Amino acid sequence: MRAVDIIMKKRGSLLNKGGEQLNREEIEFLINGYVNGSIPDYQVSSWLMAVFFNGMSFKETACLTDVMLHSGDSIDLTDLHGPFVDKHSTGGVGDKISLPLAPITAACGLTVPMMSGRALGHTGGTLDKLEAIDGYRVGLEVNEFKSILQKTGFAMTGQTEKIVPADRLLYALRDVTGTVESVPLITASILSKKAAEGSDALVFDVKFGNGAFMKTPEAAQELAESLVKTAQSMGKKSAALLTNMNTPLGMKIGNFLEIEETLDCLEGKGPEDVMELTYALGALMLVLAGKASTEEEGIERCKEAVQSGRAMELFLANVREQGGDDKALLSQRNVRRSPFKRTIEAAQDGFLSIHAYKTGLAGVNLGVGRNRTDEKVCPDAGIILHAREGCFVKKGQLIMEVFGKNEECFTQAIPLLEDALSYSSEKMDPVKLVLKKIL
Amino acid sequence: MRAVDIIMKKRGSLLNKGGEQLNREEIEFLINGYVNGSIPDYQVSSWLMAVFFNGMSFKETACLTDVMLHSGDSIDLTDLHGPFVDKHSTGGVGDKISLPLAPITAACGLTVPMMSGRALGHTGGTLDKLEAIDGYRVGLEVNEFKSILQKTGFAMTGQTEKIVPADRLLYALRDVTGTVESVPLITASILSKKAAEGSDALVFDVKFGNGAFMKTPEAAQELAESLVKTAQSMGKKSAALLTNMNTPLGMKIGNFLEIEETLDCLEGKGPEDVMELTYALGALMLVLAGKASTEEEGIERCKEAVQSGRAMELFLANVREQGGDDKALLSQRNVRRSPFKRTIEAAQDGFLSIHAYKTGLAGVNLGVGRNRTDEKVCPDAGIILHAREGCFVKKGQLIMEVFGKNEECFTQAIPLLEDALSYSSEKMDPVKLVLKKIL
Repeated sequence: MRAVDIIMKKRGSLLNKGGEQLNREEIEFLINGYVNGSIPDYQVSSWLMAVFFNGMSFKETACLTDVMLHSGDSIDLTDLHGPFVDKHSTGGVGDKISLPLAPITAACGLTVPMMSGRALGHTGGTLDKLEAIDGYRVGLEVNEFKSILQKTGFAMTGQTEKIVPADRLLYALRDVTGTVESVPLITASILSKKAAEGSDALVFDVKFGNGAFMKTPEAAQELAESLVKTAQSMGKKSAALLTNMNTPLGMKIGNFLEIEETLDCLEGKGPEDVMELTYALGALMLVLAGKASTEEEGIERCKEAVQSGRAMELFLANVREQGGDDKALLSQRNVRRSPFKRTIEAAQDGFLSIHAYKTGLAGVNLGVGRNRTDEKVCPDAGIILHAREGCFVKKGQLIMEVFGKNEECFTQAIPLLEDALSYSSEKMDPVKLVLKKIL
Repeated sequence: MRAVDIIMKKRGSLLNKGGEQLNREEIEFLINGYVNGSIPDYQVSSWLMAVFFNGMSFKETACLTDVMLHSGDSIDLTDLHGPFVDKHSTGGVGDKISLPLAPITAACGLTVPMMSGRALGHTGGTLDKLEAIDGYRVGLEVNEFKSILQKTGFAMTGQTEKIVPADRLLYALRDVTGTVESVPLITASILSKKAAEGSDALVFDVKFGNGAFMKTPEAAQELAESLVKTAQSMGKKSAALLTNMNTPLGMKIGNFLEIEETLDCLEGKGPEDVMELTYALGALMLVLAGKASTEEEGIERCKEAVQSGRAMELFLANVREQGGDDKALLSQRNVRRSPFKRTIEAAQDGFLSIHAYKTGLAGVNLGVGRNRTDEKVCPDAGIILHAREGCFVKKGQLIMEVFGKNEECFTQAIPLLEDALSYSSEKMDPVKLVLKKIL
């Protein structure tokens, strides 16, 4: 078997560029060869580009996922109590849903093993948010991860070196070779990691809009179907929601700020959109796991977990177990802020729009996120919204409090944020947050 | 400027995979960066695959050619007498046309600077054939190349390290990344080298058929049009012939064997197809160079160059100038053969077909060609045909004398050659050697 023949099979011929499906042996040869160093990156990158153009069938995608999964260690949860259910979001601005969702669903009887990522580009990262809690550790050893999972019903960690090494290698290569935007490659990247963390069921929050990876509902639906169908073909229960990411989620964007909003949610006082999406995803997780027979019942159970205080208890227990200072967290709440501050007022009267992508880019400048994986984020940087998409605002009214990592960052961030705001004389239709469910 | 942005521009988006045209700065950034080592091969290979899928406009192709040309030295012929005209063939089985063509057109007053290649895969290489002449040197220094060009009207050499280094790098990368079969990339590879050797006019022999790189006339026409149009946009006169490569050219295939057939041609006694194609290409070269006003006149002039013995004189003069032993050559003619020999007789009565590709593959086993660039060829290996495509043959009649590099090679070569022969009960239409002219 030769790598170049596999590349050309996927590529097709000059007269018929459609290519052919690869079989398991071919995918194994390529991926295992890349991981063990026998196949060079320049062959893998031309194959990735051929996949960008010609796609992969669900069968090929499932096979790629499985081969990637087996490139490293998996977490064995069979000695713990399930059902093990996780959620994955394709990423957005102000998307802190995982943080309230994990303790809420844990309080409903699920076991939620979450392996999360970091901020990159305009999107935030769950691990960076958690690290804004003094002492909180996201680099758990497998035994510690399992032990915390057992105690608090959920645990949050980063991907270790040993979990799906094929994905780390492939993702780094895709990032520099223009081959990130491929539905089967995205699917395999997400699912191989989710499968390695041991979940039996997976719910996907696939976002569309300017602040999402997929710009249109159609593109998001293609990815959602690929994720759900491929996960199901791997024996996992799965469903997805297509959700709107044209405007930021919630009223707080930032690392510590989103931890604060999480506490609000766990008290049932979070912003309407964050509560709605948390309950919708939680209900779907409960249904998949057989802990609720309908989504309506699932939503009720999630609400009870909040009202009873059980979700908040589990969250604070998890903070303590993962090394975080829960007392400091509560005392810093609504107080801890960067000393570098600006405000933005409405430039004119009108119905407000807030552009998610531009807001996210400004966040990178402020220190919420990063452009390169080796950059540090600032836990106290961020944006507090005082008006939401669709509200009527009066000229001069406070729209945003903006906190930066330093004074200098505002030079770039403030014009970006001003540009993210627009004012319409006509009332807009309310944003439909959850557009569609994919089962 | 970032390489990944250039890759993505050529690639297009997930929703519109058509990509955009690159400008000169972008092409320069990528190619020069690759040559100087600042852009890694894995980025270039994914870009090459995007070009495979999305192609390049004539403007982009001309720009790529020019950037590649300027990656190294060019040969300056301005102190010699022109017109400087060369021919390039896309390669085939038994294609020795360059060998008689260069001295014939030189005898007609052209100056023919030929930079040629070596055998690879099923196709032969002019340099390997010339090296079958005792002492013949194909690695000329520039000054020697020019001096011989002046003395004998043509000179034959290989590409030096300093000529178009971008092509050597890119070709090696394309070969292992499944990105060879791309019309703009093939065009730029051929033309950058031809431009570097200093020709004012270029004639292309673009072959189609099972023994050709382009399998169909349509694909060959696309390449021919790309070559001619791009060469013209670079200020060179240019034309192409589309010619049939479903069956080998001539009656002799092999390195020394094709030198022998060249001598036959230079005496006007070569096989009909080799003579026809040599005259057709020669006439086109003379017309482009203004040395004949019509192709008919060009053909007459080529025939005169043969009949007068001037073409043969120039060929033998070139052999001496390039270090070859012309006396040994003439004494070995029709005598020098590998001691390892087989014959193949007709398996049944019928009208004969000889499959070029299978014959070429058998040639690699015999030692005519090579699969890897570091393999040696055997000068005395080869095949003498005793019957041609379309002839009626009787069962048991001698079809081929087969000469191998050793005894063992026949185990693979003979079944391949037997498989290359087929016998039809119906008379076939005669092969039309020159299908079309592209101006």
